[in-house]
Amino acid sequence: MEKLSRRDFNATLAKGVGGVTLLATTPLACAMGNAQNKKKLGVALVGLGSYSTYQLAPALSDTKHCYLAGIVTGTPEKENAWAEKYGIPKENIYNYQNFDNIAKNDAINIVYVVLPNSMHADFCIRAAKAGKHVICEKPMAMNVEECDAIINACKKAKVKLGMGYRLHSEPYTQEIKRFVKEKTFGAVNYISADAAYRSTSNPNQWRLNKKLSGGGALMNMGVYAIQSVIYGTGENPISVSAQEFSTRPDYFKDTDETITAQFEFLSGATGSIMTSHNISANRLFASCERGWFELDPASTYIPLAGRTSSGTLDFPQESQQKLQMDDFAKHILFDSPNLAPGEMGKRDMMIVEAIYESIAKGGEKIKLNFETDYGFGG
Amino acid sequence: MEKLSRRDFNATLAKGVGGVTLLATTPLACAMGNAQNKKKLGVALVGLGSYSTYQLAPALSDTKHCYLAGIVTGTPEKENAWAEKYGIPKENIYNYQNFDNIAKNDAINIVYVVLPNSMHADFCIRAAKAGKHVICEKPMAMNVEECDAIINACKKAKVKLGMGYRLHSEPYTQEIKRFVKEKTFGAVNYISADAAYRSTSNPNQWRLNKKLSGGGALMNMGVYAIQSVIYGTGENPISVSAQEFSTRPDYFKDTDETITAQFEFLSGATGSIMTSHNISANRLFASCERGWFELDPASTYIPLAGRTSSGTLDFPQESQQKLQMDDFAKHILFDSPNLAPGEMGKRDMMIVEAIYESIAKGGEKIKLNFETDYGFGG
Repeated sequence: MEKLSRRDFNATLAKGVGGVTLLATTPLACAMGNAQNKKKLGVALVGLGSYSTYQLAPALSDTKHCYLAGIVTGTPEKENAWAEKYGIPKENIYNYQNFDNIAKNDAINIVYVVLPNSMHADFCIRAAKAGKHVICEKPMAMNVEECDAIINACKKAKVKLGMGYRLHSEPYTQEIKRFVKEKTFGAVNYISADAAYRSTSNPNQWRLNKKLSGGGALMNMGVYAIQSVIYGTGENPISVSAQEFSTRPDYFKDTDETITAQFEFLSGATGSIMTSHNISANRLFASCERGWFELDPASTYIPLAGRTSSGTLDFPQESQQKLQMDDFAKHILFDSPNLAPGEMGKRDMMIVEAIYESIAKGGEKIKLNFETDYGFGG
Repeated sequence: MEKLSRRDFNATLAKGVGGVTLLATTPLACAMGNAQNKKKLGVALVGLGSYSTYQLAPALSDTKHCYLAGIVTGTPEKENAWAEKYGIPKENIYNYQNFDNIAKNDAINIVYVVLPNSMHADFCIRAAKAGKHVICEKPMAMNVEECDAIINACKKAKVKLGMGYRLHSEPYTQEIKRFVKEKTFGAVNYISADAAYRSTSNPNQWRLNKKLSGGGALMNMGVYAIQSVIYGTGENPISVSAQEFSTRPDYFKDTDETITAQFEFLSGATGSIMTSHNISANRLFASCERGWFELDPASTYIPLAGRTSSGTLDFPQESQQKLQMDDFAKHILFDSPNLAPGEMGKRDMMIVEAIYESIAKGGEKIKLNFETDYGFGG
């Protein structure tokens, strides 16, 4: 596993998911003393790119059970600005070299790894070795082997491991999971998910660099589509076939541009996904025995929206990241369910690898066999 | 080519497209004398199943340039009821045996073949030989060879040949074609089409009998999905890969249940379709450079509906079949464009065959090479 300097990808984090850079409202002054946070778990964000800056840090100002206690950055210039804005004491600020000293810092309970994919395994494992609970951004790592290494490190260190799968804490997604569990519209016959955005800016961004990302659209938005077909059916797939499409090879030199994949489920449901860095689309649709349900958008940060054959869905819109981090903190504090355990991230990586395998074999159907349900039912 | 008695499939036409049996409002008394119709072209419907009964015949009561002049049926009991309801003179009523006598009947200008797929080629060719213009229901025939035979027969007889592709005359579809032609939302990057309904009734219906239908979902709803991705991009595809899914083999003993397929287009657009007799879904969606457009439903008889990134589409709802038949009559009378020529039906059958070939080859990508655009731009 190669270690990469933060500088290698710093310039490339300017775009959020869905290609939409959404600036959250500036957080209220959050420079509250640590005293106020004694009952809350301290979170350290590793990697201060746009996702940390515009989503996670503001969300942590609103969480009930955790707060932004520390930062880990490869960019010294960021240290002061973050320290001031979020009232982070000097001793809670780390860089990639001295990160392991975090083991001695009791103010940090959770390390949230928000780095390029190639750095996930390294920092998740180092965090676990430091005795910290770990949240790992998606995709979990570069491959299944690395996922295993992360899971094993966390088990060995007896720390909790959660994926940064914010949607499991999000009310529209939870409603979909309820429909599936309660068979509100009968059994699901068809599940379709598009998770894609059109990338036209900086071709040097780390997501388009295979050494840093491990893959293109599939490793990025594709994980949402895979997640959608699984929580949209309440089942792990039993097979997958896949196709790759390349139409802008000059821009997508190194990573997959557009991938489609088809899934079989034991229940008889059929699944179909499209993920792309060249197409704008974001939707989950399920056709059931007695109706249908749809989220559109289904996985953006902006308010999700949904319809069913019975009417429109309408849920309060809260920060997905706030809900997600509170759910993980509650898992640690109160032993509530881990909504997105590491094993779920590994399962999704197994599907990612099967999709790449199918593509390499000209679209051949690849069988999948998962031992557990990895909590997909939520 | 096997000739089949109407009785073989009579009982099986009870379900309309989309699995929805839509009873049109009872047509007003239409027993106007032929004198009134002198400037209109006379249409003979061949096959009086539910599509003729509930869609075409009522629509022909409203058309400006053609009217229901005759019927061809294998069920003698239907003759009187139709004759009375639509004022059809005895001499304009035929059965499958004496059908060729229609050559001597000047009241019949157009023969509309609304029979099971296996009978299309036979009756289209006989109609052409009788010197009548021909409308052929979709899919055009059992295979490309039969399509060629129909096209050649019509050319030889110097009669016009149109497919029963009603959507080309329908305003929502025409708006989609305008978006594509004028690049209203920029180039299309992705086109997706679902055309599917869930069949649970009579397993003996002709659509599920390969000898009569030539294939299952793909030969039925699949043609709509193929059409959608073509008029949704304004291009013929250059390749296709496909997958078949079977989950109710006891019901779908003989024909394909669910098929997914992926298309490449020269422009760089990627296409994805799903068609099924086991799933309810009916949608066209295109993601473009500067927005998107969607029809949902996209190919049912019931009012279509559409949205774009700029707002909702809203067109007057008229009988699609009325518009279609008037367009074909205008093609004959005024040499206006043939919106759905036989070559278009043949092209779609070539794609159908390529999809079955890809499935037979385990999802292998099949290259497509069409010489002309077959008027897909409308």
